[in-house]
Amino acid sequence: MTANLVGERRTFVTHLECSLTGERYEADKLQGLSAAGRPLLVRYDLEAAGGALRREALEARPTDLWRWRELLPVRRTENIISLGEIETPLIPIPRSGGTNVLVKDEGRLPTGSFKARGLVMAVAMAKELGVKRIAMPTNGNAGAALAAYATRAGIETLVLCPSDTPEVNVREIAAQGARVYRVNGLIDECGAIVGIGAAEGLWFDFSTLKEPYRIEGKKTMGLELAAQLGWRLPKAIFYPTGGGTGLIGMWKAFDELEQLGWIGSERPKMFAVQASGCAPIVKAFEDGVEHAERWENAHTVAAGIRVPKAVGDFLILRAVRESGGAALAVEEDDIVRATADSAAMDGLLLCPEGGATLAAYRNALEAGLVSATDDVVLFNCATGLKYPLEDRSAVLDKNALPDLAEL
Amino acid sequence: MTANLVGERRTFVTHLECSLTGERYEADKLQGLSAAGRPLLVRYDLEAAGGALRREALEARPTDLWRWRELLPVRRTENIISLGEIETPLIPIPRSGGTNVLVKDEGRLPTGSFKARGLVMAVAMAKELGVKRIAMPTNGNAGAALAAYATRAGIETLVLCPSDTPEVNVREIAAQGARVYRVNGLIDECGAIVGIGAAEGLWFDFSTLKEPYRIEGKKTMGLELAAQLGWRLPKAIFYPTGGGTGLIGMWKAFDELEQLGWIGSERPKMFAVQASGCAPIVKAFEDGVEHAERWENAHTVAAGIRVPKAVGDFLILRAVRESGGAALAVEEDDIVRATADSAAMDGLLLCPEGGATLAAYRNALEAGLVSATDDVVLFNCATGLKYPLEDRSAVLDKNALPDLAEL
Repeated sequence: MTANLVGERRTFVTHLECSLTGERYEADKLQGLSAAGRPLLVRYDLEAAGGALRREALEARPTDLWRWRELLPVRRTENIISLGEIETPLIPIPRSGGTNVLVKDEGRLPTGSFKARGLVMAVAMAKELGVKRIAMPTNGNAGAALAAYATRAGIETLVLCPSDTPEVNVREIAAQGARVYRVNGLIDECGAIVGIGAAEGLWFDFSTLKEPYRIEGKKTMGLELAAQLGWRLPKAIFYPTGGGTGLIGMWKAFDELEQLGWIGSERPKMFAVQASGCAPIVKAFEDGVEHAERWENAHTVAAGIRVPKAVGDFLILRAVRESGGAALAVEEDDIVRATADSAAMDGLLLCPEGGATLAAYRNALEAGLVSATDDVVLFNCATGLKYPLEDRSAVLDKNALPDLAEL
Repeated sequence: MTANLVGERRTFVTHLECSLTGERYEADKLQGLSAAGRPLLVRYDLEAAGGALRREALEARPTDLWRWRELLPVRRTENIISLGEIETPLIPIPRSGGTNVLVKDEGRLPTGSFKARGLVMAVAMAKELGVKRIAMPTNGNAGAALAAYATRAGIETLVLCPSDTPEVNVREIAAQGARVYRVNGLIDECGAIVGIGAAEGLWFDFSTLKEPYRIEGKKTMGLELAAQLGWRLPKAIFYPTGGGTGLIGMWKAFDELEQLGWIGSERPKMFAVQASGCAPIVKAFEDGVEHAERWENAHTVAAGIRVPKAVGDFLILRAVRESGGAALAVEEDDIVRATADSAAMDGLLLCPEGGATLAAYRNALEAGLVSATDDVVLFNCATGLKYPLEDRSAVLDKNALPDLAEL
């Protein structure tokens, strides 16, 4: 346990704000979507926060997620829950990517994915606000993170996932103390069921962006990246985009860091990466519209980005456009090839969604959207160990050894 | 990438030494076992190292494994290879373990296990010493770590594993660029085949403790633990013991830290944890002998500790006895129960070998070998995600929803 988990520190949350209308909401009570049906964003008194926390003091703290406490919503230290939210490493992939490509390996977080960032924060806030029962739709990794943290916080949890969710996810959710249901539908259809129960008062709805705090946890990706790179941001970020909380969160983090005076006004080009079998944000980006339509017959090997409809679509599109980036769709074959290349050439096993970012980077390079001299960060959102790998072993009989020189 | 990976730093290796006879061997050439057929230990000029690296300077460095460079054997920075060897977190498990129990979660390392520590060091040294081809027997995780690092170092690799090695291990080894063979035998029989090929000059033998550097990587567990706990060691350490490199390595680390004056002479009780279906070290411990006999018909769900015969047996036994600890065998049912409890009660998914340490801790508590007020560290050596979990999901039909209040 690090000092970040036990130290009493001030919180600087002032209020919540509708991401569409700017309408103010009270911070210290349970909130879902705004009256306009849009995500609520947490706002801070950043001037006061910057007075209380100098960059040098931040740098002297242990590097885990809770080092950012003054920029996070949890008020009381006793509500912090933790399974070891370490700072995730940046790993070069010179052969499969290029000499200026770093992978931020989010698979090292608790429960093996970046979902831990959002859920540790949301569950801590649920604890702070007295929530007793949570339900959430998931494509797998979010459910695993929720289960682990909710169990730790003593909160009862139900998780609904598409029937073909990666098997290990379904099982780890149950092992970590949540009830898990397989639904004959996609994640938004699971979400609809969760919504019905929430309206009936059966549980609190933890769907992506339907409560205000997952985004605050996810924004630590942006905070952390800036600190790791010496308060300089990369030229481009490739981010696997389902619900898009992380992309929206990083964009928010960069603004907060600039207001603190810790970084300048430069921003990375933000690339929202989707699979061609489920690319609603890409379509909306290309069509020049602000909201995305539901993607019908969504399919991709990258289960985590199989999200036909994202409630934060306009926030994703706004960040991508303001940054001068793009929303890019990649083919299934390219996802598989990129994932295989990273492992076989650089020894780094990515998840398919991480592989998708490498595939998108390669395409962007070819299309001239980025140059090989640009420093680029790809987000590997989960450990590659959760996904099926090919069996390429051979058999050796100890009782009838071949000529070993031929192995 | 951290400053530890690129900074030029001095090395203080003086020589290698036979762990049985104390005979000296030259450091800067390729070495296997000693003439006595025993592991070689790396020796340092610790007085000079302590002069070059003050504790305060060490504390100011990024916390990854390479912060310990002055206590590691790699001479040239260009030979460092890395996939992000972060400092692994210490996670309390108050409900399934107790209020003074911390789990060191080694599953967060590259390729999801503590094997990364040993193999990153051994492969870096193989690179430094010009090795072109490596072969190794494995129960799974070591092979995965070797494959990833050797691929990164551009070294060709063959891995031999028992046919019933966890499926994900066999597959990740191949995905990460090594050739992998399933052998109808246990790990020592795989090792025998590797030995034959090594004798024929076909490859360099990377078996546990048969080259001198894996132990140097593994000793960072002890260095790191001391740093994390503020240069105070816990009362007891429970370590899942197959080949035992980590236990031997930590014991060596504590001595080196004492010689540096960074810790005192107190030591934790070292508990070597084995499964009752493969407990050669436990038998030798109980029989009061210095070497262990091969364990016949070895079997356990905890594949990583299914090691019938360990070349470093006497070193494990020596550390355990000097420390006032014990070698403990745990039943399969207790391993399964402890693993399930940690996940369901504390949200922490352990690997079976990690579960074995929790089971052993519970037994030791009952037997009075440790007390509930002792601070204790359990080693979870790999991510629990690599092992099969039970399916405890239910089905929900979106077209025929039940009363949601009954979920």
